[in-house]
Amino acid sequence: MNVIEAIKQRRSVREFTDDDVSEDIIKKILECARWAPSGINNQAWRFIVIKNNETKEKLSKFTHYGRIINESKVCIAVFLDLNVMYDRTKDTQSIGACIQNMLLTTHSMGLGAVWLGEILKNKEKVRDILKAPEFYELMAVVALGYPKPKKRISSRKDLSEITYLESYGNKF
Amino acid sequence: MNVIEAIKQRRSVREFTDDDVSEDIIKKILECARWAPSGINNQAWRFIVIKNNETKEKLSKFTHYGRIINESKVCIAVFLDLNVMYDRTKDTQSIGACIQNMLLTTHSMGLGAVWLGEILKNKEKVRDILKAPEFYELMAVVALGYPKPKKRISSRKDLSEITYLESYGNKF
Repeated sequence: MNVIEAIKQRRSVREFTDDDVSEDIIKKILECARWAPSGINNQAWRFIVIKNNETKEKLSKFTHYGRIINESKVCIAVFLDLNVMYDRTKDTQSIGACIQNMLLTTHSMGLGAVWLGEILKNKEKVRDILKAPEFYELMAVVALGYPKPKKRISSRKDLSEITYLESYGNKF
Repeated sequence: MNVIEAIKQRRSVREFTDDDVSEDIIKKILECARWAPSGINNQAWRFIVIKNNETKEKLSKFTHYGRIINESKVCIAVFLDLNVMYDRTKDTQSIGACIQNMLLTTHSMGLGAVWLGEILKNKEKVRDILKAPEFYELMAVVALGYPKPKKRISSRKDLSEITYLESYGNKF
């Protein structure tokens, strides 16, 4: 799938079919995740892949969106490794770039995903369930699977509302 | 260009030819930037497009990588609008997703770009030069243009170093 199409057509998918997601697909998603850019190429992202239903059930208690975690076939918990972090803002941005790679790759293969952030309110509990060390800070959980057919609508601000030319105030 | 190819082949480009970048190309890049995901769809990214050489010259003083800014055809300063921010971590991540969209789109059209972060050490000065208000926090400057031919090599950690299955410690 073409990059620009993927970027514009991707939507959050919160309803999944029962179809299994292969090991090969998960590897492709992580392979693209790791090719994100990061400051000084420190690659501070870490992943825990969750397929086990009992673990998903436990995680589902920590977010208002537990139904999505339980219905998804695979969840990927994305962490920031605080031991290799060099700048909180830049490392957090690079984790965002990494997650976007995951979402685009997922979409381009006909699957769907949703980036769950609300669960960060219980990030320490998630870390404990997944037996991750204290230097792993939860950044997001990406839930994925094959999308149930549904019209998914989203919108964005017009470029003229968010862009200026040369300096603030001059509309682009 | 295919998404997965773009993600894997994209490299930071720091040497640009004299070829101009059209208005149409800049619009396509920003169009894809704005389609990034953000928590509660708050779209806190803001852009100032810089083509003027005098402005680039001024910005170049604020970073060790001033040469790249001056040689680039277009710089896009990416800001976080603090007035619409709802969660610093999540908004910073979404800015990273937005920048990754810009880099992938740029690469897919045969141009090159580099994500400049070191300039953040002078973020207030950049904001002043661009006459942006105090609620605009500089997140990055993306410098772009047509790449000078050059072999660009980068590397990433192996998946086995950064991924676990079900819980920390079980290699994926």
